Amino acid sequence: MQTLCWEGGILKLIDQTQLPSQICFLDCKSCDEVAEAIRSMKIRGAPAIGIAAAFGLVLAANDYQGKDTGELLKHLREAAYTLGATRPTAVNLFWALRRMLGVAQKSGDAVENIKRKLLVEACRIKREDVEINKRLASIGERVVPWQASVLTHCNAGSLATAGYGTALGVLRAAHQIGKIKRIYVDETRPLLQGARLTTWELLQEGIPTTLLTDSMAAFLMQQEKVNLIIVGADRVASNGDVANKIGTYSLAVSAFYHKIPFYVAAPLSTMDPEAPTGKEILVEERDANEVVTLMGERIAPEGINVYNPAFDITPHHLVTGIITEKGIITKPLAKGLASVLRK
Amino acid sequence: MQTLCWEGGILKLIDQTQLPSQICFLDCKSCDEVAEAIRSMKIRGAPAIGIAAAFGLVLAANDYQGKDTGELLKHLREAAYTLGATRPTAVNLFWALRRMLGVAQKSGDAVENIKRKLLVEACRIKREDVEINKRLASIGERVVPWQASVLTHCNAGSLATAGYGTALGVLRAAHQIGKIKRIYVDETRPLLQGARLTTWELLQEGIPTTLLTDSMAAFLMQQEKVNLIIVGADRVASNGDVANKIGTYSLAVSAFYHKIPFYVAAPLSTMDPEAPTGKEILVEERDANEVVTLMGERIAPEGINVYNPAFDITPHHLVTGIITEKGIITKPLAKGLASVLRK
Repeated sequence: MQTLCWEGGILKLIDQTQLPSQICFLDCKSCDEVAEAIRSMKIRGAPAIGIAAAFGLVLAANDYQGKDTGELLKHLREAAYTLGATRPTAVNLFWALRRMLGVAQKSGDAVENIKRKLLVEACRIKREDVEINKRLASIGERVVPWQASVLTHCNAGSLATAGYGTALGVLRAAHQIGKIKRIYVDETRPLLQGARLTTWELLQEGIPTTLLTDSMAAFLMQQEKVNLIIVGADRVASNGDVANKIGTYSLAVSAFYHKIPFYVAAPLSTMDPEAPTGKEILVEERDANEVVTLMGERIAPEGINVYNPAFDITPHHLVTGIITEKGIITKPLAKGLASVLRK
Repeated sequence: MQTLCWEGGILKLIDQTQLPSQICFLDCKSCDEVAEAIRSMKIRGAPAIGIAAAFGLVLAANDYQGKDTGELLKHLREAAYTLGATRPTAVNLFWALRRMLGVAQKSGDAVENIKRKLLVEACRIKREDVEINKRLASIGERVVPWQASVLTHCNAGSLATAGYGTALGVLRAAHQIGKIKRIYVDETRPLLQGARLTTWELLQEGIPTTLLTDSMAAFLMQQEKVNLIIVGADRVASNGDVANKIGTYSLAVSAFYHKIPFYVAAPLSTMDPEAPTGKEILVEERDANEVVTLMGERIAPEGINVYNPAFDITPHHLVTGIITEKGIITKPLAKGLASVLRK
């Protein structure tokens, strides 16, 4: 099952808000529909939203019926603005839009050619993502010890990417050679990506999996039930500070306290050379309803004020290493990141 | 509104599983009904379940229709066993049962006298609890700084006690003299006592309150939005290790990392001189359904393994101080605890 695919001129994606109780596919026939799917988190995960946005630009191009290349480029820039305004934190979104706009601008071609080249590029981004994940996984597998009891947060699996996954990709590769004893999955409030998506992926692969609430992770570490923590990322600053799903920082602090290795798995498309540190990363604050309603029912009194950052920033000194498709970056992370980005 | 009250030979209590959407009262007419209310967490909070259990023994006594004192005592011991088997961690439950059985055994009276003395004792435990909370609050208020932004976890308020509360009691007292800028409340998964109960209590008092998921607490501390953490306790070991609602330990680790004072508010009935350390405290594991279903709907795939400890143990070195009705115990906690228990 693919997270998203291009079929008959339409972007089809699994509606992740309905998982695991229902497997529904959503047809996006326009750039606006893609933007709405990203905004409402029907598709989520930094690499996956980058790929969806690339196809969003394909749909925007196809939507243009004229013959004027300049007009098409203007239309594409507007579409890129719409797609870029959906979610501010994951940098892969902007990376993919920039790459797609680059292709359109560089070609200087007739409208039909640009449309074709954009589709080719979007398909390439998608195909490359799976290849990159597999390379990253085979490199990252060596940080996983034998008899590993691993804790992960949110979903950095197939569903967060075009397939295979980043953090879960590493764990899949480790499982294939028998290294995994158990994977512990934080439920990941408020939207429960761990409970709904990660457990669903891992059960399908027959990997021993245990679900816990986010608040239980530190106690699990105290009980010596975890020997590795691995998570994905939404943006990595030049100094190695990591933006990832809210709750990651709490895990990193607990990992540090319990002396448990804390790894981040992220493709180079997640690195942001323009952000010197995590301070420059904009953390999205989402609607209070995500916290105060559950399954459509209210769980807190009316009128209550809510804090709902969708991400947090883990400072580089709490990160043991960053697993990329070009190798594992160890400390000092800033130097290692600069080096792989130059390659 | 009272958490629980004795009315016409019946123990009436607020069904806390229905809050805040509905205020329902539950009539407990027998010891077994009280036991079931504790087990299903219709009433919860260490002091409150101690008081409920005391009235459970009154109901058990009243249920005995014979005239044989020995038989009544045997019946009461059986009832105490039933009540004690409901939840293993909060020591106030055992403390209240021991105190009630002591009254019954010491009196050597006729059956009717014992029944009367038990009712007097249960009412005394309930009345004392409010007095103790108020004393504890007025003592504890001095750890709260001016312009305090305080984080709390679960519910250690009126609803967890006969009234006023322990951790929330301290915050109420601090609010009365204008010290509180804002109280941040962890939602407290899985059963959401923070989201459902604590916010409800604080809104009624007009205290500025912000709700967050448990996973956001560390990030909130990183953002320098918290200058005090205060929680209740279910059991305190002789060395100062604290058993409290799952998630407390995670907060304590983060508080330590961010150098934020971490206080526990607990009456002496929560101290367990028989537990030398936290290792001797039995941590209740509750049903997986509490984690995998929300508002009656399933949020995780069928067949998933679940970790669901209801409490965790915070080691004494992470606790800044313990606020009791006999003073604030500072480090070394073991010495301070021994001293207040001798008083």
